[in-house]
Amino acid sequence: MNSLDSLITLFARLPGLGPRSARRVVLHLIRNREKLLSPLIATLTETSQSIRTCAVCGNLDMNDPCTICTDDRRNDSQLCVVEEIADLWAIERSRMFRGRYHVLGGTLSALDGRGPDSLNINALITRAQASEVQEVILATNATVEGQMTAHYISDRLSSCKVQVSRLAHGIPIGGELDYLDDGTLSTALRARLPII
Amino acid sequence: MNSLDSLITLFARLPGLGPRSARRVVLHLIRNREKLLSPLIATLTETSQSIRTCAVCGNLDMNDPCTICTDDRRNDSQLCVVEEIADLWAIERSRMFRGRYHVLGGTLSALDGRGPDSLNINALITRAQASEVQEVILATNATVEGQMTAHYISDRLSSCKVQVSRLAHGIPIGGELDYLDDGTLSTALRARLPII
Repeated sequence: MNSLDSLITLFARLPGLGPRSARRVVLHLIRNREKLLSPLIATLTETSQSIRTCAVCGNLDMNDPCTICTDDRRNDSQLCVVEEIADLWAIERSRMFRGRYHVLGGTLSALDGRGPDSLNINALITRAQASEVQEVILATNATVEGQMTAHYISDRLSSCKVQVSRLAHGIPIGGELDYLDDGTLSTALRARLPII
Repeated sequence: MNSLDSLITLFARLPGLGPRSARRVVLHLIRNREKLLSPLIATLTETSQSIRTCAVCGNLDMNDPCTICTDDRRNDSQLCVVEEIADLWAIERSRMFRGRYHVLGGTLSALDGRGPDSLNINALITRAQASEVQEVILATNATVEGQMTAHYISDRLSSCKVQVSRLAHGIPIGGELDYLDDGTLSTALRARLPII
């Protein structure tokens, strides 16, 4: 196998890419050697060498503790618990949250044998017991595993003197009722709010 | 911008990837640093250094002339003309063609100002005049530009003593009539073949 084929095989293993799109990507990279391939090699190398997992929250960053954990302007009283780093990034993009984060690294799953010890939960309990923390926001996914994990964590936190909250469920902004699943619709109906 | 953001920006510029899928890819790479990120950096570097465009046919390969052009077991009498390297790879995957290739590097396009000189056509005419070449197969895409380019090349080849042919048009294998566009269907009907 020559290096071209190895490269296509590697790209085909990335999420969302298959053999066909991997071939397109590789051809595109080789055609744009100066503008794209060389910068990509340099940035991948730099990232691979400099990226750290933050020991406090579990975020990925050039520094440990990460820029979010060391930012003085952020609010120490709120702790937002997410499953994955991608979720942390998504909430950061919304620019609505200025507290701290805690990345679990997944969900509990009886089927896949992931118990509490395989997640970053004990560290969360310790952090939640700090005097400055007033609220823990459980921002796990609205899936069975995500909600089960949130339930387990809120049980563990019940002895701490913190407010535990979760994200609101309902109709996504821009969502059309006709295209929504029944679960979302019935949740939104049950959680309806008076407007006058 | 830190190296993580630069990396996501670079991946988002690849064909078929956007900001969201680029983020997923980058997180996946970092999570699988040993198994995926390091091999990817190594293979990208190796490819970037060793890949050559074959001066004979225009294929990409570790060697120039490429492995197809130097393979003794292939048939010198057939020359298959394709638009892009991806098309050459697609025909190779079909394992039906054992002749040589010629990559044009695109199509003629009056709109985008691509004339015959911007394509690898003159070299093709020279190759087609070699005594061993008996057939030139025009395997350009079945698009307006592809067919126009094939027409132009067959004009230029009319003075050479070679058979010029094109790929068959018709219903793709596995295709359902109901989902086919009218153009394909009418072409297939016009080119119908007697079976008894």
